[in-house]
Amino acid sequence: MRLPGYADPGAGLRLHLNENTGGCSPRVLDGLARLTAAEVSSYPSYERLVRACAGRFDVDPEWVLLTNGLDEGLLMTAVAHVARDRTAGVEAIVPLPAFAPYPNSSNAVGATIVRVPPGPGFAFPVEGVLAAITPQTRLVFLNTPNNPTGQLIALDDLERLAAAAPQAVVMIDEAYIEFGGTSFLPRLAAWPNVIVGRTFSKAYGLAGMRVGVLIGQPPVLDPVRDVTLPFNINAAALAAASAALEDGAFLSRYAAEVSVSRARIYDACRRLDLEYWESAGNYVLVRVGAGVAAGLQACTVAAAMAARGVHVKDLSRDPVTAGCIRITAGPVAHTDFALGALQAAIAERPTS
Amino acid sequence: MRLPGYADPGAGLRLHLNENTGGCSPRVLDGLARLTAAEVSSYPSYERLVRACAGRFDVDPEWVLLTNGLDEGLLMTAVAHVARDRTAGVEAIVPLPAFAPYPNSSNAVGATIVRVPPGPGFAFPVEGVLAAITPQTRLVFLNTPNNPTGQLIALDDLERLAAAAPQAVVMIDEAYIEFGGTSFLPRLAAWPNVIVGRTFSKAYGLAGMRVGVLIGQPPVLDPVRDVTLPFNINAAALAAASAALEDGAFLSRYAAEVSVSRARIYDACRRLDLEYWESAGNYVLVRVGAGVAAGLQACTVAAAMAARGVHVKDLSRDPVTAGCIRITAGPVAHTDFALGALQAAIAERPTS
Repeated sequence: MRLPGYADPGAGLRLHLNENTGGCSPRVLDGLARLTAAEVSSYPSYERLVRACAGRFDVDPEWVLLTNGLDEGLLMTAVAHVARDRTAGVEAIVPLPAFAPYPNSSNAVGATIVRVPPGPGFAFPVEGVLAAITPQTRLVFLNTPNNPTGQLIALDDLERLAAAAPQAVVMIDEAYIEFGGTSFLPRLAAWPNVIVGRTFSKAYGLAGMRVGVLIGQPPVLDPVRDVTLPFNINAAALAAASAALEDGAFLSRYAAEVSVSRARIYDACRRLDLEYWESAGNYVLVRVGAGVAAGLQACTVAAAMAARGVHVKDLSRDPVTAGCIRITAGPVAHTDFALGALQAAIAERPTS
Repeated sequence: MRLPGYADPGAGLRLHLNENTGGCSPRVLDGLARLTAAEVSSYPSYERLVRACAGRFDVDPEWVLLTNGLDEGLLMTAVAHVARDRTAGVEAIVPLPAFAPYPNSSNAVGATIVRVPPGPGFAFPVEGVLAAITPQTRLVFLNTPNNPTGQLIALDDLERLAAAAPQAVVMIDEAYIEFGGTSFLPRLAAWPNVIVGRTFSKAYGLAGMRVGVLIGQPPVLDPVRDVTLPFNINAAALAAASAALEDGAFLSRYAAEVSVSRARIYDACRRLDLEYWESAGNYVLVRVGAGVAAGLQACTVAAAMAARGVHVKDLSRDPVTAGCIRITAGPVAHTDFALGALQAAIAERPTS
């Protein structure tokens, strides 16, 4: 059966989608339990949450657009800035490796995708992206920290790119910024062509609630607002995000756990002689296979971990991340369990 | 402040958006209260609800796509069937009066909107729509019962239109069909270019939860599935819709109240000498103003009702529905209260 959404991996520890496997804040559950029959049966009103987000991000409420997960923000940006004008031959720049919604959103609106490969060690290819910008460029997808490599883009490089593509929307996806990056937001006032994307799915632990936030100046954001559905996030998402914003301690506690977990994954990789990349996100990219058998080995390791009850993301089908898996780093106890499964899976790997 | 969503009218009885002002089923609240921290923090899986909807609508699960309210289904259909191919000059047919998301979705993807005026008494303009179909037609938006007139389109007319536009997607929006219409679904197997839209917002009382359903054969539905976000409805919406499907008695009880309420609105209109149109939806279109002052009068009546705590939809800005308001017909006690406000508002209306 063809169904929307990724295949549910079944029982086990879900370390394949960078969710918070420790769950959301108890305050969020309290907020959900207080939903009334009238709230469930009435179209929602977003003003209060918009103002709360504007306060949190220290921007004008006019610069804030709530979206049905950041995914919707990416797609609606593509609809607003590519689909509506219907010019032929417009381009979207997607540095690699890339979060799937960037090419997917570009394809959905018929943009030509210009892929830019990374530098050595997955270094962000700032010169390559600069060279890829043309008068036809309408979208530039930048992801800091990058999913899946965990690497940040320097703020000065983000500004160089924004300056080089005034005719395009420069989307800076900061979905994982709370785990160790520095946000572009304090510089946003200088850049009327930049949209910063944030989400409640990661640091706030609300992946199941679908709340993203686009932040940008009216010239770039209002066209997106115009095409975005007027009732795009539901009453439960509103209640959940509002409650999450009020629990500041949750965020710092979770980020601290992520930091410890990342360090344990690095240690395990050194012990197991696996290549890994230091990450500013709540996940670590690990190369478990190499050479011609890279894809097969990553797939085998992921399957062996799943057999031990740990789901990780097998990235070996993308040649850019050949031989790699991505492991979510969350609660330390979950990380330790996953590393036990990784060690066992590596031990039983057929030698190539 | 520019914000998404319609302006919140503030306190009072909300009879302006065809919500169920009696609230949702208590089973839905039970379902929401059972949400766990893990469900809130994990991306949802839709298979179970897709199968339940397929069972309810008596179609193959492959014919079902859940959407973030039916609004998203309309927009994603436009993205899939217009934005992606980027052919110049494609057209969307919108019979009048029209639910705003039809022109909005068409505009969002750059389609040329071909509006077809209604016949006398808002009769559905089947000949007009047939005459409007061209080789450039990509979308035909049909709404049965029509919002705001409440009038149904004959099933045979729907088939004539589907047969006349094989190159287009014929969207049959049945958002209000449970209140007195006959669904096209039993005829859908013959029409590979038709999508039927349904929603949990109206009869099921879940407007605040945002769950719509597109039903169509794979050739027309799969392109929509391809552009629709993989995690487009949240864990709470899943729980709510699943619980609502299990409470069949709620639906029939509410539809019975709607039927009584519509009859009371008709009676009041006859008593007050106001023109109205019999409706198959949970709302009634009423002309409260006429002639040159029509717009002003409808606006005045709506404002006077609001001052008495009843919000209705002022439709006088659309010339097709000049002088008209739309009153939601739900729980009988709410209707009686609204009719008291209408009578008082009419009594104080300045004579033109």
